[in-house]
Formats: sequence, C-alpha cells, structure tokens
Amino acid sequence: MKQYDIMVIGGVAAGMSAASQARRANKDISIAVFEKSDYVSYGACGMPYYISDLIEDHRRLIAIDKDDYVSRRQIDIFTGTEAKQVDFANKRVLIHLAGEDEWYTYDKLIIATGAKPVVPPIEGIEHENIFMLRNLNDGIRIKEFVQRNFPQRAVLIGGGFIGLEMAESFHELGIAPVIIERMESVAMALDPEIRERITNKLKDNDVEIMTGVAVNRISREGSLIVHHDDGAVEADFIVVSVGVIPNTDFLRDAGLKMTERGALVVDERSQTTLPDVYAAGDCATVRHLITDTDVYMPLGSTANKQGRVAGLQAAGISTERFRGIVGSQLVKVFDLEVGKTGLSEREAEMHGIKNESSVVTWKDIAGYCPASENLFVKITINPDTREIIGGQLVGKHGAAQRTNILATAITARMSIDDFAYLDLGYAPPFTPVWDSLLVAAQKLVKR
Amino acid sequence: MKQYDIMVIGGVAAGMSAASQARRANKDISIAVFEKSDYVSYGACGMPYYISDLIEDHRRLIAIDKDDYVSRRQIDIFTGTEAKQVDFANKRVLIHLAGEDEWYTYDKLIIATGAKPVVPPIEGIEHENIFMLRNLNDGIRIKEFVQRNFPQRAVLIGGGFIGLEMAESFHELGIAPVIIERMESVAMALDPEIRERITNKLKDNDVEIMTGVAVNRISREGSLIVHHDDGAVEADFIVVSVGVIPNTDFLRDAGLKMTERGALVVDERSQTTLPDVYAAGDCATVRHLITDTDVYMPLGSTANKQGRVAGLQAAGISTERFRGIVGSQLVKVFDLEVGKTGLSEREAEMHGIKNESSVVTWKDIAGYCPASENLFVKITINPDTREIIGGQLVGKHGAAQRTNILATAITARMSIDDFAYLDLGYAPPFTPVWDSLLVAAQKLVKR
Repeated sequence: MKQYDIMVIGGVAAGMSAASQARRANKDISIAVFEKSDYVSYGACGMPYYISDLIEDHRRLIAIDKDDYVSRRQIDIFTGTEAKQVDFANKRVLIHLAGEDEWYTYDKLIIATGAKPVVPPIEGIEHENIFMLRNLNDGIRIKEFVQRNFPQRAVLIGGGFIGLEMAESFHELGIAPVIIERMESVAMALDPEIRERITNKLKDNDVEIMTGVAVNRISREGSLIVHHDDGAVEADFIVVSVGVIPNTDFLRDAGLKMTERGALVVDERSQTTLPDVYAAGDCATVRHLITDTDVYMPLGSTANKQGRVAGLQAAGISTERFRGIVGSQLVKVFDLEVGKTGLSEREAEMHGIKNESSVVTWKDIAGYCPASENLFVKITINPDTREIIGGQLVGKHGAAQRTNILATAITARMSIDDFAYLDLGYAPPFTPVWDSLLVAAQKLVKR
Repeated sequence: MKQYDIMVIGGVAAGMSAASQARRANKDISIAVFEKSDYVSYGACGMPYYISDLIEDHRRLIAIDKDDYVSRRQIDIFTGTEAKQVDFANKRVLIHLAGEDEWYTYDKLIIATGAKPVVPPIEGIEHENIFMLRNLNDGIRIKEFVQRNFPQRAVLIGGGFIGLEMAESFHELGIAPVIIERMESVAMALDPEIRERITNKLKDNDVEIMTGVAVNRISREGSLIVHHDDGAVEADFIVVSVGVIPNTDFLRDAGLKMTERGALVVDERSQTTLPDVYAAGDCATVRHLITDTDVYMPLGSTANKQGRVAGLQAAGISTERFRGIVGSQLVKVFDLEVGKTGLSEREAEMHGIKNESSVVTWKDIAGYCPASENLFVKITINPDTREIIGGQLVGKHGAAQRTNILATAITARMSIDDFAYLDLGYAPPFTPVWDSLLVAAQKLVKR
C-alpha cells in the first residue's frame, strides 16, 4: 500500500498550486498529484487563444513541465488516473491507475478535481462533432477538428464568457459563429448597458446571435442541424458551454459538507468540514465578501489562490488565509475589454441589497490625445452604507485594469465619497485628468 | 467698484474647476475668474505632446472655450489681468487690468494662481533661446521656435518628469536632447531600480544624460554653450525645468499661513487660514495621507480636485471634502509606462517610517500570449503596521493602471496580507493568472 504525506487529487490550477506551495513550505514531506487527464499545470483559460491559433502549440499553455515537478520539486505526478472513492475514516483514497484500483493513504488530502461541463438534456447532444471545452484534451480535439475539416459554420450553445471567447476564436479562423442563448441576452452576468455593447460588438463582427431561444434537438443530415424554438440552423460542428458543475460525484455521501450542486464547502483556510481534508478551485465554494455567503463561482484566479492556501495549510502554515472574492471577472470580446467586479444590479436585488448606480462614457486617456477612445463605466453603491458594491466597464483600452481598481476599493469597503477623490496617478497618455472612474463616482457623491 | 460673490484668481486647472463647480452648485451667484496669461482652462500636462506635434493645434488643449464660460455658464473671464494685492480685511482684490489698477470686492475668494518655474541662479540664464515650460504661452513659444529654426540639439537642465517628457518630445522631432541633472540620477522621486530602467530607456533612444553635474554658466558663441562641472556642451536652445514655486508673492505678509516656500496652507475643505478664502492647486499645500503632513506637491490631478472642493465650498456646499493624496504620479518615457504611488524607500526613511520592499519582474499578461511583455513591480510596506506604503512600476503596458490599484490599496490602508490575495479580475489577454502585483505582494506575506 502506497502512502503520501500530502495527496492532491487534480493537477490543474488549484491542485498544482497546492502541491508546489506545500513543497515550498516543507522540503521533507512526500507529495503526490493524481490527475485524470493527460496534462497537469496548464492554463485552461488560454484555450480559446490556442484554438484560434494565436498560441500555436498546446505545450505553450503548460506552465511547468511534468518532469520538472518530479525531478526538481520531488512531487510525484500520476496522470491518467482517477480517484474513485475516499475512505476518510482510514485516511485513504482508492485510485484507479493503469487498469488497477489501489488504496493510497494520506496524512493530508487536497481535493482539486475541478468541474465538468453541464451536458444539457438535448436529444442528439452526444456526437463526435459536438464538443465541450473543459480540459486541455478538449481543446486539442477542437483544434484538430478545425484544422482537419475546414468547417464553415459553428453553432455555440450558450452565450456566457466562454461562448463569447469561442465566437471570437472561430471568427479569427474564418468560421462563421452562431450563438444560441436560452436567456434574454448573452453575458447575463452583466447589466444590460454592458450586454448591449457586447452584443453590438459581436454583430459588428458577423457573429449571429439568437437569444431567448432554447435548443430542442440536434439531428444529422450531412451536417448537423440544430433545432430550436424558432426553427433550425445548420452547423459543421457545435461547442456547448452552458456552465459547469463540480467534479465531486465520488464524494457524495462521504460526510463532507457540499452544496446542493456538489461544491465542497471550505473555509478561508481552504479546509473542508473534515480535519486534514482541503478543497480548492472549481470543485469548491468560496466566500463572497460582499454578500458574506459561500458561493460557487469557478474561476482560474480563485483556484490558484485557494490551491495555494490549501497547500500551505496542508504543509503546516496554519496562518495562511484567503478571505474570499468580490466577483471580479474579465473577458475580451474582439477589441473590447470587458470587466465586472462586485454585484450587478440584478445580483444586488437578488440579495436584497439596496443599490444605486451611475454610468458615464468618458475618454480612456486625455481627450486631446489622438489615440483616445471611449470607455463606458458603471459604478454601483449601496446608498445606505455608501460603500461601492459593483463596477462594470467596457472599452478598447484600460477597462480591465480599472475594473481591478474598483475591485480593490470594494474589497477595502471604501465609501464612494472617498473614492470620488482618490489620488489616482495622472498623465495624459494614460488617463484623463479626471479619470472615468472618478467621474462616475463624483455623480454618486451626496451633496 | 466691481463686486462678485465669488472671485477666482487664476484660470487653469484649479481655478476653472472651482468656478465651474461653484456655478453648478448655485445658479444665482456672480462669479469671475482673473487669469494672468491669455488662456484659461487648458491641459498644461499635455504641452509636451503639443510640442512634439502629436497634438497639432494648441486649441486642442483647451478643455472648454472661454466664450462658453461667459455665455453658457455666466462666468466672467478676464485674461491678461493680474492680482496685485488682497485686502482681506475689506474683502477686496486690486486687479491690474487693461493698464489700470482697480479694486474688486468679493464675498468668497479662491486663490488658484498656480506656480512659476524656479529660475536657477546661473549666469546667462536669461536669453531668448532659453525656455521654461509652465503656461500655454511658454508651450507655444517653444513650438514656434522649433518650427522656425530647425534646431539640432537641445539641452534640458533638470531631469525630473518634465525634463524626461521634453526629451522624448524633442527626440520625436529629430532634435538630439541632452539632459543635465545636478543630482545623482534623473527621476530622483523614484527608487534606484526604476531610475535605472528609465535611464536605460533614454540611452536606448539616444538621449544623452549627464548626472551629478551642475550647470555653472551659459554663454553665447553662435549657438549657446552650457558650461558645467565636467566641461561644456553646445545647444541650439535650452529648456530649464528644475522645479516650481507657488505664485503667491503678492500675498506675502497678508496674514495667510503659508509654507516657507510660499505654498498656502489649506485644509480638506480647500480653505486657507482665513474665513471665506480658499486656495487650490499649485499655489497650495495638500494633505499627504501616509505621512499625515501638509506637503507641496503640485500636480494637475490634485489641482482639479482641490479646485472642485474650493468651488463647491465657496458656493455653500459645506460637506465637500478632499482628504488628500498618496503621492501618485505617472510619466511616459518613450514606450515605457512609469508609475509611482505612496513613498519611495528614501522618502519613507526621511519620515522615519520603517520599510520593507519586494521587487519582481513578471509578465504583464499571460506569458503564453505572444504580446506579453515584462513588467517591473516594487511594493513597499511598513512591516510594523503591515500596511502598503508605496509602489513603483515600469513596463510597456499596464504599469500606469496597476500603480492606481496600489494607490487605492494605500488610501484604504489595506494590509499586504489581504492585498496578496486580492480578487483581481483575470483573463489571459489582460493579466496573468497571478498578477504581478499579487506576486510582489505574496513575497511580503508573513508566514
């Protein structure tokens, strides 16, 4: 029977962060990572750019080579393996490896199994030319399909951020994308003003968009036919991205607290409800600092932070904490930077939080510089506490980093009245003398 | 005798902000602005880009037309006028206008007279081909000189931010710039690691730099000869930028508290030490939020904020406050963005503040994106309080806005331990999954 001081299940963002940090904190313990796919330590969020061929080789996405973990970091890596069961009472995991099941015992366990795509219950959804995009194997399969078959037309089921990124990737490849979204708009995480700008940008780039339309059936007649509420569209291939759910089926009824959909509930030490058992990344919850609730919001940036804390905690650094998120997200939509942090108005209302917003269209750099472009800024506050609770930006330059300025202010619980006079550095090639953020904030100051 | 409810002396950043905001707050009061130069409401920080001809017409720098203030905003504007004396006891100002001196009485007075360049005591410094760059008239004169005389070689006395910007402007125009700086380096506001990168960038662009060298005399032998400690250099023209001092000579001994160098001391309402008298911008002090002292740090961004508060206060909005600055500054040096916020190590030491720094060179966007470039980040904390007290960044993209993320954290007195896990939005085209700021911060976390 095999034994490790720290066993990590899952070897992408959270898992490899955990293993690396544990090793950094303690040179003497034994550490192993068990990964289901063929790859560890890759940048999953880079896959749309790999598919569009901006990044030619999938190996560019791999942050640290597998051999490097083994030789230089003394971390054992097992790919193509699956954790089938955990026996928490005896601190052991049943691993399926090279055709056999074997028990491995651990002192500390880190669960970083990530998430799997939701497969919508659509007749005909299982087909070789219908793809999900989750792990690097998926990305490689899509790129191979495109390079071998020269498809003309792709249907994207789901208009979330991944759907938007894929639409751009396919457009770059000369493939006409059609987005079919069940909800009233693409990018429903955002408020209507931002969604409208995204929609216009997609249309300007010949992306066909159908919203408020459900897909009912997919048939094959030469090419694929996607039957939806309003008719049918033809496609050479389909990419489905309608959300993900935690990869935690093997842990059901094992005694760990999880949400209804299967996300492992963790605290700010990345610890689950069992001692010596940590979870991190897309299989776990995270604290939302505005609503003060545990939420499921799977993102690579969070996975890295939770994984780091899990690894350090497991290696004995008991002070390490990741307090939580404020819901920051960035996405590129053709030549637009789109950013969101905090709550949208809809989300604030869902949580019963009073809200008031201001919007402004302002120049991204000094207006007299020929390169200046419009930037749209929305700031949302709680008028009772005066705290900033949300921000959404869209523009050609500077929307992403300005979103992060707001994320900082939200995390610090800064009042809008202080933010409106914030000492942001100024130089004409980089900012107007009153930055767009301050202009939007000034409109909310109580006078 | 003329009378105004609000008299504003000075019509650039602070003065015009004050007048506009006062009008916005109260439609019924009478407001007048008295400006010494021929122009009001121009973006002084844009002048290097006007001189380099990136901005062709100086009128592009003027934010709002003079006539617009008069007709649409009902603000009287007097250009080419000078305030010669203030009689605070009788609330009146002696104005020199069209060859005559006349008393104007006020109910509220806003002093926004800005600053004037320091003229170093160098023999021969007064010459028609030796320029200072302060107001728009100066900028126009320099550009006219360059366009008429096709100069080959410019000497810049002073290697502060304006000197750096002018070096770039002249390089763009095909004029070889020579910077002569008395101190050990250009850009002395910054720590050595950043100065070194700036120096290298200047040299890569054929800017000649002499540091630790004082100019002793300027003579004319056909062209100008600049005699310095180590010899002499020839120049077709010279631009001197060795700092500024407040334009407050006419207020000496009038009973307003001012610093030794003449900056009017104001509080967070922009009020001077006399009731009904406000001051704002480059003639006033501002509160430094880290050292909790009144400092003289003349910058356009601060001038606008102080002016706004002065105007609103004068118009009766007694709640309006500008709490102060954290020392944020941005400058473009050829293709580099350079940013500083908070204190440099040298400044922290001058104030007796314990400090500890981390530096990192990291990618500005995901390293697997072909467009990724290096970004150098330095974060300084007070290890006792754990608060961030400074940040300096340099890189081709994203240094400016990331400086402003740090400015926000510093203003909010965020601890480095919280900052290191900040939920910054992430997407590969805009940030690495661990942003450079977080990487630098992680190195300072206490474990």
